Amino acid sequence: MEKKQRIAILGAGGYTGAELLRLLLAHPFADIRALTGQTQAGKPMGEVYPHLAYAGLPALVETAAVDYKDIDVVFCCLPHGQTQEVIAALPRHVKIIDLSADFRLADTQVYAQWYGHDHRAPVLQKEAVYGLTEIHRAAIRDARLVANPGCYPTSAQLPLVPLLKAGLIEREGIIIDAKSGVTGAGRAAKQGTLFCEVDGGISAYGVASHRHAPEIEQELALAAGRPMVVTFTPHLVPMNRGILSTIYVTLTKSKTAQNLAQALSRAYADEPFVKLAPEGVTPGTHMVRGTNLCVIGVFADRIPSRAILICVIDNLVKGASGQAVQNMNVMCGYPETTALTQGALFP
Amino acid sequence: MEKKQRIAILGAGGYTGAELLRLLLAHPFADIRALTGQTQAGKPMGEVYPHLAYAGLPALVETAAVDYKDIDVVFCCLPHGQTQEVIAALPRHVKIIDLSADFRLADTQVYAQWYGHDHRAPVLQKEAVYGLTEIHRAAIRDARLVANPGCYPTSAQLPLVPLLKAGLIEREGIIIDAKSGVTGAGRAAKQGTLFCEVDGGISAYGVASHRHAPEIEQELALAAGRPMVVTFTPHLVPMNRGILSTIYVTLTKSKTAQNLAQALSRAYADEPFVKLAPEGVTPGTHMVRGTNLCVIGVFADRIPSRAILICVIDNLVKGASGQAVQNMNVMCGYPETTALTQGALFP
Amino acid sequence: MEKKQRIAILGAGGYTGAELLRLLLAHPFADIRALTGQTQAGKPMGEVYPHLAYAGLPALVETAAVDYKDIDVVFCCLPHGQTQEVIAALPRHVKIIDLSADFRLADTQVYAQWYGHDHRAPVLQKEAVYGLTEIHRAAIRDARLVANPGCYPTSAQLPLVPLLKAGLIEREGIIIDAKSGVTGAGRAAKQGTLFCEVDGGISAYGVASHRHAPEIEQELALAAGRPMVVTFTPHLVPMNRGILSTIYVTLTKSKTAQNLAQALSRAYADEPFVKLAPEGVTPGTHMVRGTNLCVIGVFADRIPSRAILICVIDNLVKGASGQAVQNMNVMCGYPETTALTQGALFP
Amino acid sequence: MEKKQRIAILGAGGYTGAELLRLLLAHPFADIRALTGQTQAGKPMGEVYPHLAYAGLPALVETAAVDYKDIDVVFCCLPHGQTQEVIAALPRHVKIIDLSADFRLADTQVYAQWYGHDHRAPVLQKEAVYGLTEIHRAAIRDARLVANPGCYPTSAQLPLVPLLKAGLIEREGIIIDAKSGVTGAGRAAKQGTLFCEVDGGISAYGVASHRHAPEIEQELALAAGRPMVVTFTPHLVPMNRGILSTIYVTLTKSKTAQNLAQALSRAYADEPFVKLAPEGVTPGTHMVRGTNLCVIGVFADRIPSRAILICVIDNLVKGASGQAVQNMNVMCGYPETTALTQGALFP
Repeated sequence: MEKKQRIAILGAGGYTGAELLRLLLAHPFADIRALTGQTQAGKPMGEVYPHLAYAGLPALVETAAVDYKDIDVVFCCLPHGQTQEVIAALPRHVKIIDLSADFRLADTQVYAQWYGHDHRAPVLQKEAVYGLTEIHRAAIRDARLVANPGCYPTSAQLPLVPLLKAGLIEREGIIIDAKSGVTGAGRAAKQGTLFCEVDGGISAYGVASHRHAPEIEQELALAAGRPMVVTFTPHLVPMNRGILSTIYVTLTKSKTAQNLAQALSRAYADEPFVKLAPEGVTPGTHMVRGTNLCVIGVFADRIPSRAILICVIDNLVKGASGQAVQNMNVMCGYPETTALTQGALFP
Repeated sequence: MEKKQRIAILGAGGYTGAELLRLLLAHPFADIRALTGQTQAGKPMGEVYPHLAYAGLPALVETAAVDYKDIDVVFCCLPHGQTQEVIAALPRHVKIIDLSADFRLADTQVYAQWYGHDHRAPVLQKEAVYGLTEIHRAAIRDARLVANPGCYPTSAQLPLVPLLKAGLIEREGIIIDAKSGVTGAGRAAKQGTLFCEVDGGISAYGVASHRHAPEIEQELALAAGRPMVVTFTPHLVPMNRGILSTIYVTLTKSKTAQNLAQALSRAYADEPFVKLAPEGVTPGTHMVRGTNLCVIGVFADRIPSRAILICVIDNLVKGASGQAVQNMNVMCGYPETTALTQGALFP
Repeated sequence: MEKKQRIAILGAGGYTGAELLRLLLAHPFADIRALTGQTQAGKPMGEVYPHLAYAGLPALVETAAVDYKDIDVVFCCLPHGQTQEVIAALPRHVKIIDLSADFRLADTQVYAQWYGHDHRAPVLQKEAVYGLTEIHRAAIRDARLVANPGCYPTSAQLPLVPLLKAGLIEREGIIIDAKSGVTGAGRAAKQGTLFCEVDGGISAYGVASHRHAPEIEQELALAAGRPMVVTFTPHLVPMNRGILSTIYVTLTKSKTAQNLAQALSRAYADEPFVKLAPEGVTPGTHMVRGTNLCVIGVFADRIPSRAILICVIDNLVKGASGQAVQNMNVMCGYPETTALTQGALFP
Repeated sequence: MEKKQRIAILGAGGYTGAELLRLLLAHPFADIRALTGQTQAGKPMGEVYPHLAYAGLPALVETAAVDYKDIDVVFCCLPHGQTQEVIAALPRHVKIIDLSADFRLADTQVYAQWYGHDHRAPVLQKEAVYGLTEIHRAAIRDARLVANPGCYPTSAQLPLVPLLKAGLIEREGIIIDAKSGVTGAGRAAKQGTLFCEVDGGISAYGVASHRHAPEIEQELALAAGRPMVVTFTPHLVPMNRGILSTIYVTLTKSKTAQNLAQALSRAYADEPFVKLAPEGVTPGTHMVRGTNLCVIGVFADRIPSRAILICVIDNLVKGASGQAVQNMNVMCGYPETTALTQGALFP
């Protein structure tokens, strides 16, 4: 019998922590050893998350109480800004998958500009591998520290990276109009995400100022081979899970929407988690709820030189905890789909 | 005491019919005389709409049973395709506000192309006035037949028309990414709008093929003085009411987002129903739920030559029945805000 | 022209405050002079509630900053426990309608038992009139301090009081199974009322321990002429507004459900806001959303001696701010329906 | 390698069909061979249910097109009334799990009374075993035809059966106030279950007349050893999944709520799917969403002789398709939890 990974989840009381637990409890090689929580230390998990009451999980402890000698893999679900120092203090033998934004921007000056303070672990940043699995699989395999991608960036990069690499779309004028469920805002009690403030309405936020923009641009620039600036507008939708990104692109000369579809089809032919929408189906987030799937639809615009891409993911799975488990599978040599094959919960 | 308008609502069993009733029941010069319903003829209104059970409304009758001698104003809420012949058969003394799409496209060839059949009342089409009140008020005042605008077009035209007129934005590359509540799909029983199909997810539909595109383009072309083609993508959001349109535009030379805001501010300075978002507020549909308001926000993009407009309306009010009452007020010489001053229902 | 009441709303930043503003802005005799907020003092109302941005309201101030010389009526929307001392400090010339629970329990010992501290204004308690308008109208007319009823108690007392008075139902074994929208929990940021915690699920809370139980029992005991204990279970439903109380009662000898319906019909024959459900209609909260209505349905159980009452209100209107305005109308001599005639917002 | 069961699902286009597919696709011994649909025959599953597009499922066919020679197990998800004749026509070698109500009532006269027509397969009815697994496991093991329980009955019977068997609660005066998500109403397009009719409100329906009442009473009577009549009121909640039943009972002499909790704890000590709520947790449907779990809370009422039980299930899983798979596992000799161990999807 294969050895299990002994796992610690830092910040297990939030939504990405709970989602990691949902997935890892079904993982044959995961042994959940430690869960930490800031304000919730000392509580049994069933009090923090009643739906996890019967899973036999350890109670939450303070971060300082974890003995890393017995830990092989750390998932870090702490808020950004707090994470750099925590991870810098971890012993070298643990593999780390960080779900915060703290290690996603390779350029620490860009980080400082968008996050308002200097990077607190610049040396470690050099070691971090950006964890968009389908694009950086080889580097992830050998990584010790993986910066798990943001939810919006995942939904933007998966359709755009292959098209930019293939030169099928212009680098300029890319517009990403993204719509997200409320779990993306986390479990901290804030007025703006109360049920009564969200239900029955839609709003935009962070217009032309959201911190996921530089993360998107970093990876698109890599694909394009040149710096990129995109237009990115996130919206808050009255639903729990899911991101739908509607992406407007200009085709390069003589290219068609069909060329884009073919290129994406080729790029992801062997990928278990990235799919093109079936003929005649416009992707909706229901298709991927609870799964690690990313579904992409390609549409010709009425303006001949333009196309529209629609990309859906579950922000808590492929946009966070699912991709984190996928990265753990890659880092530890397990089949990449381990614990990630469950079907969508619909309705 | 001023004479009341005797009113008939054709197709009163749908959502726009119910919303007309909500508004007209509070209108001091409205006398609701006849309500028609196709399958529901014979039913008391309280059975069709329990929330209207106590309003003392007449029972639904068949369209043919209305005696138009006693009617001054007809609101027509029938499905498109059925409306042209019904309206053509109405006597000349009634004022008509048509909430369907049947008389919105001035060019009957464009109509035929998008709706798949010849226009059934082409002579009457010449008489129809497009009812975007703020833009066509003078013509509406003298009209006998007003084609009440579509919900998406209202949310796109109100921000864009003044900017195109003033030459502040390029005619090309306008992208309208629109998100709508489910009432826009009507009350007919369809699998796609069942609660369980919609709740908890978001989807796009009619990508590059929605029939509101030519309606939007018709009015923008009028404003720009030249033909227009726009990119328009509607989305279905799990909420009852509201449209939020995120509109991406390119500025003409040396113009700024601030110029756009100033132009809109000037254009709508005396308008009771069109407002710029307060400083620091990103418009959301909650701001306008149940009201005839349109709120517009203007944002500079990170790309200097571009701007983002966000426009919110309640699709059933300013996007349908509220604008219809506004048009009735204009046609009948009442103060334009009569019966339209209620505040938003939030939460 | 009639003199307007100069009004202050204490705690205007919460949901009952916003709902008071929605109603009072349409009140011909209301002049809103002062709005207070604890943490939000100094903010313009449009920042606290964007949907109120265009109403021309004064900015929020601290409670201490209100000059009561210019105030005729105070609506107090502060949390319970804080309210007794604030109201005790108000000058005698102002009329006060308190929406908290602080003055609802006539017996200060019962108050102390359920709220965990001594009543802080026991003398003032003697003066307070319980404001269930239909039941205590005469006393409200002469009151200086009205304790506006709780939302659950309103939905339980309106159907039960006339039946107990008439001896048609047994005092024992009354079960009130109540389902409420989330606005009942207020606008304070709490994890339990985050969108993601509430959407897509239903839960019970405060089983056999909710503080509205003694309030319900106080008024039922008055009606029955003897002490009462009821079974009361509240539930949290993923919707913003509305309470539906399903009430199970035992009929007294030889009585039928029809007798109950007749008695309620008689009791509320002249009441503008309390209605029996139309024949064949099972009441739902949609019927009353945004209105001051209470709709009651009476059903025979399959067990001959038992009946089921279903009562719906909008918890923010008849269950809070609407009844408060109704009480102001009574206290100030205005027609009782002033500013309360708007129709339900459905869908 | 163990032989797989070759499975046909009749009526696979509805919600219980889709849920069976979600579960069976993860079942190591299930081989899905045939899917039927009435109006949808000929369509690929990805068109009927886009979220199942990538599962490699066969296209829907007409019921008559299934060759039962190659089928071992039939799940029947047809509407009630249509099912008796279809099942009567199946060959004797197939095991059948019927999710409709057609074989649940052992007494065909009771069936006729509640369903308005004579039972169409009375001989087969004698053979049918009522499939509440925890209660009738032994009979299910040997059954050829299992009548899978209704969703409401499952939520009422699991808490009540052990208590009645043990004589801890009175047979009289049991009240079941049940709240259900909308999937319980099925996928057929009906006005009453449109998003806009359901969202933002709660309503009761079938008051004292719902067809699940005799099914509940049949099993409770078995447990009590005498006929039973209960009060049962279902409500429609704006959520997709979940049933919460609040059950009011009278304790037999000198019994306490704690006695009930102990009895339930003992009765279900070895059951993998029935759990008592952890200390201090009031059960909500979120705890069980997507799982085959039933969670029960027991509460003392303030009236000493009374107690309140709260029972939550996912109506599509333990209330339908999950229990069906559980029954298949029992009938075929697989471990009962096979394919039923996934955790709750929350949020």
